Order: sequence, then C-alpha cells, then structure tokens
Amino acid sequence: MTLENDLFLRALLREKTERTPVWLMRQAGRYLPEYRKIRKQAGDFMTLASTPELACEVTIQPLERFPLDAAIIFSDILTIPDAMGLGLHFVQGEGPKFEKPITSAKDIENLPIVSADDLQYVMDAISLTTKTLNGRVPLIGFAGSPWTLLTYMLENGSSKSYAKSKALLYRTPELAHQLLDKLAQSTISYLAGQIESGASVVQIFDSWGGVLSPADYKTFSLQYMNQIVIGLQAAGYPDTPIILFSKGANHSLPMMANSGCHALGIDWTININDALKLTEGKVALQGNLDPATLYADDHFIDHAVKEVIDAYGDRPGHVFNMGHGMQPDMEPEKVAVLVDAVKRHSEH
Amino acid sequence: MTLENDLFLRALLREKTERTPVWLMRQAGRYLPEYRKIRKQAGDFMTLASTPELACEVTIQPLERFPLDAAIIFSDILTIPDAMGLGLHFVQGEGPKFEKPITSAKDIENLPIVSADDLQYVMDAISLTTKTLNGRVPLIGFAGSPWTLLTYMLENGSSKSYAKSKALLYRTPELAHQLLDKLAQSTISYLAGQIESGASVVQIFDSWGGVLSPADYKTFSLQYMNQIVIGLQAAGYPDTPIILFSKGANHSLPMMANSGCHALGIDWTININDALKLTEGKVALQGNLDPATLYADDHFIDHAVKEVIDAYGDRPGHVFNMGHGMQPDMEPEKVAVLVDAVKRHSEH
Repeated sequence: MTLENDLFLRALLREKTERTPVWLMRQAGRYLPEYRKIRKQAGDFMTLASTPELACEVTIQPLERFPLDAAIIFSDILTIPDAMGLGLHFVQGEGPKFEKPITSAKDIENLPIVSADDLQYVMDAISLTTKTLNGRVPLIGFAGSPWTLLTYMLENGSSKSYAKSKALLYRTPELAHQLLDKLAQSTISYLAGQIESGASVVQIFDSWGGVLSPADYKTFSLQYMNQIVIGLQAAGYPDTPIILFSKGANHSLPMMANSGCHALGIDWTININDALKLTEGKVALQGNLDPATLYADDHFIDHAVKEVIDAYGDRPGHVFNMGHGMQPDMEPEKVAVLVDAVKRHSEH
Repeated sequence: MTLENDLFLRALLREKTERTPVWLMRQAGRYLPEYRKIRKQAGDFMTLASTPELACEVTIQPLERFPLDAAIIFSDILTIPDAMGLGLHFVQGEGPKFEKPITSAKDIENLPIVSADDLQYVMDAISLTTKTLNGRVPLIGFAGSPWTLLTYMLENGSSKSYAKSKALLYRTPELAHQLLDKLAQSTISYLAGQIESGASVVQIFDSWGGVLSPADYKTFSLQYMNQIVIGLQAAGYPDTPIILFSKGANHSLPMMANSGCHALGIDWTININDALKLTEGKVALQGNLDPATLYADDHFIDHAVKEVIDAYGDRPGHVFNMGHGMQPDMEPEKVAVLVDAVKRHSEH
C-alpha cells in the first residue's frame, strides 16, 4: 500500500524530509473525551483492547483531531504475559494486575513461549486499522521489552525498589535469563505477526530499563532487545524500522545505537543534541520534550518545541515526540498547539 | 570535640584514608526491629522525630549493630515546610501529607521564611546526639533541596507527572523562583543551626532533581542548592563539608562539581568511574551500590561492593554508600555483610 504521508518512515530511515514528523506516545487515551466514551461503552480495558473494531476506532481518534504523522495501535505491553497465562486485568486506580503473577522457579519453567497466533485479537486489530487508515499514515506496532515485562510479571503492580525482580537477577540469574529469553522469543513472533498484519514500524517500550545499573541494563535489558531486533531481521523483516525506547537509560545510548535498531526513543533528561553526539548519527532519534510542558501555556509550549527542534538541528533523522506518554489530565487543545509548533518550526 | 573516627570527614576532604568510610542513607529506619519498637512507642512519625531523646536513640541504633563511619540525625526533609505552617503529618500507607499544601500564588506570597529557631526540636536532637556520640563518629545533618520541597508542597503526595510543580515553573516562573528562594533562605539558617548544634557534615537531598530536563534542573534545582552552599560558606562555615545528592541527575555532574560543595552523592545508574571522570576530582564522591543488591545473597553483595570500590580505584575521596536509601523490607544481616565487605576490600 502506498502511503499518503511517509514522513515518519523516511525520518526513521534518516532520509531528508520537508519537515519533522510528529506523533505522541499514548496519543490514544484517557485525555481524549471521545476515548473515555468508547472506554466506558466497552466496560473494561481488556474488552476495548481485544475488540478489533473498538481498538481500531480509538487508534484513529487522535488523527481526527490532530494532523499527526503516525498512528499507534491501541493495545497494552502486557498482552504477552496475558497470553502466557498470567491473567491480565485492570483494577480501578491500581493499574494492571495479574491473577497468577510469577512467584516461583517452577512458574518460570512452566511458562510457555507464545506466538502471534496466541494474540490473534491484536493481529485482527492491526489488520482492520491498516485497512481503515488506507495509507493515510503509517501504523506503529509495539511490545514491551523483556525486562520491563519481567518486572510486571514478578512485582504484580508498581514497585519502588523492584525487590522481586532484582532478587531474581541477583540470586538466580539463570532463571532470569530463562524468563527473559522466553519473553524475547515470544516477542519476535508477536512483532513479526504485527508487521505481517500491517504495522509499518515497531517500537519496543522498555519503561523500566532505567532502574538498572548500566552493567545490569546491558545484561538483562539491552541484550534481549538486541535479540528481538536480530530475530526480526532474521525472520525476514530487515527493512521494517524498529524503535527502542528505554526510559532513564541515557547512560547507554552509544551501546543502544549499535543494537541494529533504526531509531531510539529519547526521554527529556538529556539535551537531544547530546544524544545525537552520543549516537553519532547511527540511528534516528525520537523525542524528547518533557511531557509536563503540556501543562504550560501555548506560548511556552511553542517555544519549548522550537528548542527541541533547534537542538536537533538540520540533520535528517528526527521524529518529534515527548519523552514519555500523554497523561490523563492533559488538555487535548495543548496537543494541537504542540503539533502545530512542530510543523511551523521544522518546515524547510 | 576530637573524633575517634574521622575517616568520613577526611574522605569528604579528599584526604588519603586507611580504608573507605561507609554509611547508608536511611540507615536508621523501618528495616531495624529496634527502630520499629521505638516508632510504635512514639505512636507517630512526627512525635518520634520531634522528641530529641527518641530521635537520638534511633539515630544511634544502627551504630550499635554495624561499624558504620557516620551517623545521620533522624529527621525528615519536610520539617521546613512544616515549620512554614503547612502542617506535616504521615498517613499510614500513603506517606507524608500536608494539611495546607500550596494551592495559590497567595499561599506562596504569604509563606514565611523560617530559621533554625523555628526548628528547635531538630537542634535539640542534634545537640543531644552529638553529646551522646561523644566523638565516636561524625554526625550528619540534612535538608531537602528547595526543588524537592517545592514538589511535596504542591503535589501533596507522590506524583507521576509533577503536573502542579511543573505548571508552576512553566506558567509562573517568577512565583516558582520566589518559593524556591524562600526555601533556600530558610535552609541556609536551618543547616547553619544544625552545624552550630553539632553536625559535622550536612547533606542536601534532591530526591526529585531527576524529573527535570537538564536545563530546568540547572534553573530550578541546582541554582538553589548552589545558593545554600554559598550561603552556608558566607555564614561562617566554609570548612563544614556539604554533600549534594540529586537522584537521577547524572547528566549534570560536571556542573554540580562546580557548585562549591565538597562531595556529590551518586546514584547507581552510572559507573562511579565515569562519575569520577565527569567531576574531574573536584569533589569527593559518595555511592553508589544499587540498594536492591541487598536482596541478593552474601557472596553477591560482597562481589558487588568490591566492584564499586575497584571502579572508584585508589584515589582519595570515596565514601561508600548505596545509590539510594534502605527499604523497609531489607534484612539487617545484609547490611553487616555490606559494611564488612567495604572494609575488607578497601583496606590498604
């Protein structure tokens, strides 16, 4: 299918573009009243995510409001652990929970490796959304990083110290590696399936990479994202851009740039120009406005967007995004200001 | 008063020491059964912190168990906002709360600048503890950084996006600066009073410096820690070592090393050897074991301690600590293993 707007893909491949493409992490979500309406109709999060028609509808909602350059399939990073049998559900005010979190070595040994076939509802949602988008913009597929999935599977909720996850790494590293490998293998099949179903780009979200020391990050997180990148390329998708986003792990940008991926997501705790120097132009960069900028007034947002664009400079390979996702209390009007500012300040 | 053990002070001044001194953030706390006993007797946290005899007792508790090289006065970073009239209390399972958080410009304008005199109970606890320690080890006084205090005063609890705090910075920066300046001025008097009362060292905890972009960190956090450092030195305490600890702000280590402080606390998301290079030997470094290492077995802890000591190398100016504080679910026995490992692996 020919894309009407391929700015995002070209920027990821570090080709020259007329302007900087823009999309926002969690652009389909609770800050949009039209999302909240569908979410309420669906009843619960998993019904929404697993009903292709509804997932397609909320994926496209932000594009109806803002001239964004990409859509990201509405889903959750915890679909893989759910398919492995952990029983994902969402508790009001508490976030995601598993009925059967990992509590023993036996749990890890018994855990199946899953494939795209076990997550048919995601494939169906992507197929339907691709068809509905009809080439308007590229669709992004995604998965959680093995390390980030591991933390949810063990902690079963939010954590301050990641006691269970780190105890697993430190006390029984061979078990940790067994779990991470099962997750990486499952993710390769899952992302390959998403690409087959129509995703033009895939992003790996490593939300908790930053809670590890640089040495542990390399061993327990980056290594497995690397395995996924290589696995996807070996599986016949060498040209589909892969974006790695490890929040809080700017200490390892040079190593990440050598992982074989096409682009890195950058959080807001580094000047994007420094990230450029550290990655030496080997990959495209996606980021990196502080999402809290959306709490400011329009003039401030405009100026802050310009600062990021100017810091990146005139080189190809920049995708504008924030350094983290939209929050439910943010105003949709502010997104319009942001998207408009990206276009005005980056146009050549 | 002559100190029996001045290793900690000498390391902070980057003098050669026989071995690396060690203390642990939150070494007096809930992981110790003897602390929990006194905490229960006191009834609530503020009674414990504001009763000099009890604060003294729990400050010294960890020294009775472990051969630590410093004590840190038992208190809380939120004593200053409390003295300003916000009404600090602790809600079971929720952490610190204020009866009157900051909600308007008027609240900021009306906020008084406080002094050590307004926090007499902290001065009394320090005097009593210094007397009781009787030169055994140095006593550390402390305060929260102005930025970190601002976040608590506005968010009134934990926050994911720091919406209120960042909105203040971005929408009304002059009001943010007014609040930060009041906090910095109060902290200068507070820390000067702590030194007068017997503290040999002071540490400024900037727990949330890392949620700011590097540019915002410089403007809204580091600048005010710098004001405190200069203020304390001008107030007649040029030789009292000051430690700055901004968690998650390793991006700004070179700038922090030029703040006039004597030492920097380093979290575990950087190899301490890289931190050394970035700070060019201008300051001592305190850190930086991942606290979750204490969930591992003894052999692993021993090895991880050795790695930090070896990474720092044979230069003077290292104080061993973890990159963050003790957690309530950690075992006291593991602290013994850690302290012993520091001594064995660093002895010349």
